[in-house]
Amino acid sequence: MRNPQLNGHGELQHLLTIEGLPRDILLSILDTAAPFTEVAEREVKKIPLLRGKSVFNLFFENSTRTRTTFEIAAKRLSADVINLNINTSSTAKGESLLDTVDNLAAMHADMFVVRHASSGAPFLIAEHLARTGRDHIHVVNAGDGRHAHPTQGLLDMYTVRHYKKDFSNLVVAVVGDVLHSRVARSEIHALTTLGVPEVRVIAPKTLLPTEVERLGVRVFHDLKEGLKGVDVVMMLRLQNERMQGALLPSRQEYFKEFGLTQEKLDLAKPDAIVLHPGPMNRGVEIDSAVADGGRAVILPQVTFGIAVRMAVMSMLAGH
Amino acid sequence: MRNPQLNGHGELQHLLTIEGLPRDILLSILDTAAPFTEVAEREVKKIPLLRGKSVFNLFFENSTRTRTTFEIAAKRLSADVINLNINTSSTAKGESLLDTVDNLAAMHADMFVVRHASSGAPFLIAEHLARTGRDHIHVVNAGDGRHAHPTQGLLDMYTVRHYKKDFSNLVVAVVGDVLHSRVARSEIHALTTLGVPEVRVIAPKTLLPTEVERLGVRVFHDLKEGLKGVDVVMMLRLQNERMQGALLPSRQEYFKEFGLTQEKLDLAKPDAIVLHPGPMNRGVEIDSAVADGGRAVILPQVTFGIAVRMAVMSMLAGH
Amino acid sequence: MRNPQLNGHGELQHLLTIEGLPRDILLSILDTAAPFTEVAEREVKKIPLLRGKSVFNLFFENSTRTRTTFEIAAKRLSADVINLNINTSSTAKGESLLDTVDNLAAMHADMFVVRHASSGAPFLIAEHLARTGRDHIHVVNAGDGRHAHPTQGLLDMYTVRHYKKDFSNLVVAVVGDVLHSRVARSEIHALTTLGVPEVRVIAPKTLLPTEVERLGVRVFHDLKEGLKGVDVVMMLRLQNERMQGALLPSRQEYFKEFGLTQEKLDLAKPDAIVLHPGPMNRGVEIDSAVADGGRAVILPQVTFGIAVRMAVMSMLAGH
Repeated sequence: MRNPQLNGHGELQHLLTIEGLPRDILLSILDTAAPFTEVAEREVKKIPLLRGKSVFNLFFENSTRTRTTFEIAAKRLSADVINLNINTSSTAKGESLLDTVDNLAAMHADMFVVRHASSGAPFLIAEHLARTGRDHIHVVNAGDGRHAHPTQGLLDMYTVRHYKKDFSNLVVAVVGDVLHSRVARSEIHALTTLGVPEVRVIAPKTLLPTEVERLGVRVFHDLKEGLKGVDVVMMLRLQNERMQGALLPSRQEYFKEFGLTQEKLDLAKPDAIVLHPGPMNRGVEIDSAVADGGRAVILPQVTFGIAVRMAVMSMLAGH
Repeated sequence: MRNPQLNGHGELQHLLTIEGLPRDILLSILDTAAPFTEVAEREVKKIPLLRGKSVFNLFFENSTRTRTTFEIAAKRLSADVINLNINTSSTAKGESLLDTVDNLAAMHADMFVVRHASSGAPFLIAEHLARTGRDHIHVVNAGDGRHAHPTQGLLDMYTVRHYKKDFSNLVVAVVGDVLHSRVARSEIHALTTLGVPEVRVIAPKTLLPTEVERLGVRVFHDLKEGLKGVDVVMMLRLQNERMQGALLPSRQEYFKEFGLTQEKLDLAKPDAIVLHPGPMNRGVEIDSAVADGGRAVILPQVTFGIAVRMAVMSMLAGH
Repeated sequence: MRNPQLNGHGELQHLLTIEGLPRDILLSILDTAAPFTEVAEREVKKIPLLRGKSVFNLFFENSTRTRTTFEIAAKRLSADVINLNINTSSTAKGESLLDTVDNLAAMHADMFVVRHASSGAPFLIAEHLARTGRDHIHVVNAGDGRHAHPTQGLLDMYTVRHYKKDFSNLVVAVVGDVLHSRVARSEIHALTTLGVPEVRVIAPKTLLPTEVERLGVRVFHDLKEGLKGVDVVMMLRLQNERMQGALLPSRQEYFKEFGLTQEKLDLAKPDAIVLHPGPMNRGVEIDSAVADGGRAVILPQVTFGIAVRMAVMSMLAGH
């Protein structure tokens, strides 16, 4: 079975998930992103690689933040960007996902950036396009349910490589709500593909998927234990809806056990870096002193994220 | 009384309704649209005809789908597009329709694409602009109440001409909720203006306007009878709000009587084509087998719709 | 203490409020705006001064009207514009104001146009950017709480100068709900800075701030008295929420006492002009005969407003 993300020549056709993406493709995205970080520092932050291309931000789940990153990336590539916020709960004039896609494809779309609350929606779209002979339209997954958020995973890898140069000798810890996190899944797949020898997950038992070890990670239920000797700490966002649920005691108690403070961070290596996908819950999963401290690379992540998205878009649809 | 859509030289000034639009203007829009279908297939889908022009999508009624078609058409013509979704039910800061128009006109708007739940709103705007000496601003009706949806009617004509070449020997059936449909009205006016010798409407009595025969159509209340010998089937959308009302028995019963199935379509001519303005209610007014079948031209309609909107916009305001 | 709006060379760094802005800066904005009024009348309304710059419309309070003026101004300067409507009441995924700003700044923003219900929010952002060494990002206040709306004040000054040529011999009256109006505050500061010898405020006692005289104005509680001999009448919008409150008797009674009618306007100088920031409540603070009459310059205000915003944006971030 062919990887649905690659075309017949083994080139990137869609970006749906990091799982199963070959190492050389991952590295080539990171390499392509590097010069785009310079574009953002120019007086005129614009290059014509996607000029005259139509990029549709197809957001079935509202996310101003993520939509903004893709919109700015596409505009800096000179694409025409159309934002569609499609409220799936409003069924007043509802049509099926695939009818919506067919309709936009018929407008000569070049790319769909898809965000959806249901895992697998971007796959469904990519398969539908392939089955109906419209392989020239590209799909980028901007987050689907609990499944994947590949551009977040990629920008995290870009950030790690920027600060640590080499993946082959790192200990990386992913901390927090792994169970519900598409970010965690994308990060773990990327880290193992890129050859990180030790990937740890640190979380309470209630926030870990069953058989998480199968992903090739070491499991810790104690933050202090798990942070010992770590090079990179990847914090996860604790979603508000989880905090109100039965899975967790209280915000305060969660912070006490799994919130990253400077004291706990001191157990990691002295030059350890801290990542967070944002938006942060200060005082829940991360202490402000750490978030704003010298070892956080949270804002550089955002900067690199634009470059990585420009890289993906231009690899898929660039002139 | 001069046609408010034409200027003193008989050229298109606004596009408000197909009713009363001369045949040569209709044909010239279709002719202008033809080369724009090629623009959409280029590597760079962009031409500078509206460069530096300000197009306002003035949507008093929400319609992501229609707004998207106008937005992409205007952007491919290189216009600056501003989307305004004005919720008329929110009166918190409400100002009158004409004050809103005056305000935007004062920003040197070149074109208003207007969608409004009230029939006649785009006319009101065009008249106001004329009365106040601002004839250089153009109005395009993107659907007003139950009245008209002229670009939909035009793209349907483009589609019919594309597949059938000539209007003068066709039998065309418009099927469904004619009573509440601005699309039906625009289609019927366009078909009769372009010389289609037989236009039929097929609908239950409760979904037909009184004295519909005055529009120059033959009336059928039986779908099978009405489809016999037809060249073109134009399906209408059955709006959800109708289905919940007292006008109709149930979705199932409606489908049984007026839903287009392959079996019923076989009563039309062997090369009959099926149009639908979208979004479709599969299993209500149309069966999926027909919607996705070889005689449906529903997605080409969407493609041609972009070209037709580019044609209208460039005829109105192009350099 | 340095003026946070000016850089080390005394040039405009942010536009936060007219209060404390030097007279020569005010005049230089008006002078810069003049040629931009011609751009709006060109066939191609576009100049490349902000090409490749990223302007974020950061609206924490919804205002389609104000957002539109900044969007069209930025697009005519060829900027890439990203609209963000951030509903502060929705705390589902809420992050702090400054985390949002940090995040967008990390995307290499060049300018934030900020609208916020809380007075001082744009200052907070400007201070935060300065403290964190990101002075190259500019902040424009598009209205903050009851505090300031400087571009409205500036476009009012542009309008006054356009019609009256000279500020030094004018009597100007600001009429209406001064208490809750950020527009009034900006206007009063601008008028006094530009040397208008007599600025009057005319309002019922309940709609005036305590010690309003400290702003250098003459106070009137009777509209007829206050209008006598006036050159310029600046009407304020009476916000609907005020009308429902206990501060005022009724719309009808307010109109009777403080609504501007032609009869009352005749008490002003024969060539007096009438301004209104919009949207107007016809029949509340202003009679339609005045709003649409020969002395109203309300639509020219809107036109000049685009030019003034283009001037401010290009002074801040232009090539």
